[in-house]
Amino acid sequence: MKINEIENPDFLQNLSYAELTELAGEIRTFLIENVSKTGGHFSSNLGMVETTIALHYVFNQKNDKIIFDVGHQGYTHKILTGRAKDFTTLRKKNGLSGFLKYKESIYDVWEAGHSSTSISAAAGFLEAKATGTDIGNVVVLIGDGSIQNGLAFSALNYLGDKKNQKAIIILNDNNMSISRNVGFLSNILDRVRIRKPYQFLRKLTPKFLRNFKRAISSYLHGGNMLASMGFRFFGPIDGHDIKTLIKYFTYAKNSEQSIIIHVKTTKGKGYEFAEADDLGAWHGTAAFDIATGKPLTETPEGQISWSKGIGDLLLTEAKKNSDIIVLSPAMIHGSGLSNFQKELPDQIIDVGIAEEHCIVMASALALTGKIPVVSIYSTFLQRAYDEINHDITRTNAHVIFLVDRAGIVGPDGSTHQGTFDLAFLSHLPNIVITMPKDLNEAAALLHYALYQHQGPFVIRYPRADISVLEVASSVPFGTWEIIRPLADINFICYGPAVSAFQDAIGSRNFGLINARYLKPLDINILRQIGKRKLVVYEEVQRLGGLGALIMDA
Amino acid sequence: MKINEIENPDFLQNLSYAELTELAGEIRTFLIENVSKTGGHFSSNLGMVETTIALHYVFNQKNDKIIFDVGHQGYTHKILTGRAKDFTTLRKKNGLSGFLKYKESIYDVWEAGHSSTSISAAAGFLEAKATGTDIGNVVVLIGDGSIQNGLAFSALNYLGDKKNQKAIIILNDNNMSISRNVGFLSNILDRVRIRKPYQFLRKLTPKFLRNFKRAISSYLHGGNMLASMGFRFFGPIDGHDIKTLIKYFTYAKNSEQSIIIHVKTTKGKGYEFAEADDLGAWHGTAAFDIATGKPLTETPEGQISWSKGIGDLLLTEAKKNSDIIVLSPAMIHGSGLSNFQKELPDQIIDVGIAEEHCIVMASALALTGKIPVVSIYSTFLQRAYDEINHDITRTNAHVIFLVDRAGIVGPDGSTHQGTFDLAFLSHLPNIVITMPKDLNEAAALLHYALYQHQGPFVIRYPRADISVLEVASSVPFGTWEIIRPLADINFICYGPAVSAFQDAIGSRNFGLINARYLKPLDINILRQIGKRKLVVYEEVQRLGGLGALIMDA
Repeated sequence: MKINEIENPDFLQNLSYAELTELAGEIRTFLIENVSKTGGHFSSNLGMVETTIALHYVFNQKNDKIIFDVGHQGYTHKILTGRAKDFTTLRKKNGLSGFLKYKESIYDVWEAGHSSTSISAAAGFLEAKATGTDIGNVVVLIGDGSIQNGLAFSALNYLGDKKNQKAIIILNDNNMSISRNVGFLSNILDRVRIRKPYQFLRKLTPKFLRNFKRAISSYLHGGNMLASMGFRFFGPIDGHDIKTLIKYFTYAKNSEQSIIIHVKTTKGKGYEFAEADDLGAWHGTAAFDIATGKPLTETPEGQISWSKGIGDLLLTEAKKNSDIIVLSPAMIHGSGLSNFQKELPDQIIDVGIAEEHCIVMASALALTGKIPVVSIYSTFLQRAYDEINHDITRTNAHVIFLVDRAGIVGPDGSTHQGTFDLAFLSHLPNIVITMPKDLNEAAALLHYALYQHQGPFVIRYPRADISVLEVASSVPFGTWEIIRPLADINFICYGPAVSAFQDAIGSRNFGLINARYLKPLDINILRQIGKRKLVVYEEVQRLGGLGALIMDA
Repeated sequence: MKINEIENPDFLQNLSYAELTELAGEIRTFLIENVSKTGGHFSSNLGMVETTIALHYVFNQKNDKIIFDVGHQGYTHKILTGRAKDFTTLRKKNGLSGFLKYKESIYDVWEAGHSSTSISAAAGFLEAKATGTDIGNVVVLIGDGSIQNGLAFSALNYLGDKKNQKAIIILNDNNMSISRNVGFLSNILDRVRIRKPYQFLRKLTPKFLRNFKRAISSYLHGGNMLASMGFRFFGPIDGHDIKTLIKYFTYAKNSEQSIIIHVKTTKGKGYEFAEADDLGAWHGTAAFDIATGKPLTETPEGQISWSKGIGDLLLTEAKKNSDIIVLSPAMIHGSGLSNFQKELPDQIIDVGIAEEHCIVMASALALTGKIPVVSIYSTFLQRAYDEINHDITRTNAHVIFLVDRAGIVGPDGSTHQGTFDLAFLSHLPNIVITMPKDLNEAAALLHYALYQHQGPFVIRYPRADISVLEVASSVPFGTWEIIRPLADINFICYGPAVSAFQDAIGSRNFGLINARYLKPLDINILRQIGKRKLVVYEEVQRLGGLGALIMDA
């Protein structure tokens, strides 16, 4: 089988189980080879190869809707729908998207980069179907991390009540989601795993199951929450056994009620280093050497990622003060907090994919005199806009936000840009927003935020490398830094753009200002500039950005 | 007992069950008399009188934390903590807040106007307690509508896993939340209600329960989801029987594990018209005549509330086109859609308190060619900022937003203002935002949004009355209306401010422009204004508002 020549999934019908299994091996090799060159989501995709083949074998997207939650497990789907040849351009500008994309394929029926939207999408498709739209089976593929999110739960609660609307939900359980799972539901799944009943179940045919489904479901899952919500629940089944998968999916297709099938997969399946990873380091990867698992481009000498740099600063501060409590929504590894978790496990909480809950909990912690620090990606912070508004800025709660991956984040595509946070934060009362140009400034801002400030304080930083900390410079509250003396034309920027402009200006006669405080503005410097020309450079939505804030002032 | 003389809840300890019950009657009378004069949240408060007395009897806020979800059921709490004398100023400027308020009382330990934050708050308090802060019992009072929300679920999932952190959750089940409940969880509660086992349970003492708790819990709740999440679950118990409530709350206080007590209450208890209400009309009320239940101030002749006016417009359109599907997050009555629900039940969906799910579902419906219309309060729309960003504007989904209570909403206080929507929407791509000055314009905009536009389209309107529809005027896309010819000084405003300015200007020589399209702007008119003076009046956050949009342009 030439992977590159696949045009659509129709050919799967002509393959035997053995051939389908062989195909899975070929796709896995293809994925390892390609992602090792381009980087991309890795472990989740390796885990989903057989499940995706089985889905396309059983369901027919000429009429059925296969909904991928998040979409970072969609590479096999892309291959089976004719996009293998585009993998050399994965996550590049105008190249293949890392997620599903309406514009790429008619087989991409749901587009998402943020988690847990899939069941709500199914509810929408099913409602349209109920009112006459020609739609076949509605199938959701969702991970064990995503299904625990509040949005997914709202949708489950909604669908559990719709007896005439049938959803098929494939729960991909790899006990990792992005990093390790948290919460009660994950514990239930753990217990089921330990019993390994799928060994036993594997021998049962779906026909047999049909008769004994209630008994078995109750045997396996006792008080299982999902079963109790009105869904029939089967599994766990082996997510790398194509024959079993096809049998269960066929059964689900023929079932008349909504059904959840619990599929157990191994994240990173088929690539040793990724299988052994229990931190989530192989969830997404840069290009790497297949033999050693080492990244092809190392962080340059004397440099560190902003994430890790900020994580280390935070660890240093937290060692000195046990009132500091760090909250992370399922991003401990990505946010450079793995060391923190190892060294101070009692001062860091992974709340799972639950940004809204995270922010409200931080508000309550602040009321008790603790110093909560929320470490979060810009794009995920937007999930909690209401909670920031209602529970943090309205009441002026002393919560510190470390906003990672702020600004333009190229490869992740349209769903993951960090260009909105300034716009959705800057209009809120009481909030202070900063973006340091380097770790020295970051250290000073963090110290100020922790000990000299009361109220919400945001420190933004980009997805990039930066020089390691030298010495914490002093940053008086609300002040900018004049990097090159004011001139007829003055550039104002912040964050990583500052040094870029410094280099670009060279010896030319332009003013350059580091606007490390975005809110409040440095009115003194603005007055000094007076009527001289001012050029604002920033990588965010224009409205609500620094330019808008200056015009407003 | 003089209600007005209560200073704090300590006196409850000296009262017998009979006296506590008598007190409940007096408080109820007090509430009916006072709210009939001032207006306010009504049914929820009447339902919670005995439960609140029992909470303050059993728990001691010198150390314990009693967390009211939303806080619109907190009037008895306010009375017991010394604020009865302030009820004449309820919901007035500088008067008693309609919700709990940190500044009002040390007994108000959690402040919220949006639903479902209480369990996350408990998680925060419990984490602080676990790391050494001196906190006693952490008690949550949450309604059956609120507990189904995704945020509450995330917090339950989180706490279900924390075996050493004990929360006491009182689930106030009146089968209504704000209007009628939806979803699977509400069905479970229904089934329990039908069996009426609390008649049987009432005879058991907590001590007896302790021994048989598991058996009883499983008998009553079988597959109950909440029990399956790791919480011990008791009830339902009669929420108007103080003795029973005290026994169970005492039991919970002495329990070592997290516990949920299911309390069955009658919303509007003690006031005939409110008890009979199954639409949610008495959830919040204006001042009314106690004998007849009629509002003291009727809507003036020829006027209609904006909510009802827009609801009627929508009904007219939906009768002509079955592709229109209206989605409401638990606000059918408040949003003027009761008639719609009666006449076209198949074209309207109440998704419950689940704004995020609502928006994602709308996005999927739009993909199928349906025309989803989301009817929502401005303040609740902010809960779904991420979903609007990620699932609607990013993909340019054709979803229409009818944003009720936009602008300043005085009596509801700081948590319910509709002043943020423009700021959190205007920086998003693809979105069109409008605010008509009257129903004639609204009809034209709605028609345009439904049939001539592709992509997200927002129609904002205030909490106010307006003249009934005369005839739909024509509103070309993206155009403003010059109400008074351009002059040296020109006022630009939108919505209800237009006629107010028209009246105020009278015959004076000022220009007046109705900026009914906030995005996109009418660049032609801006050009005509040129360098003449421009004054923008708007009732929203300045950043991201019309003024900022004009400066940006």
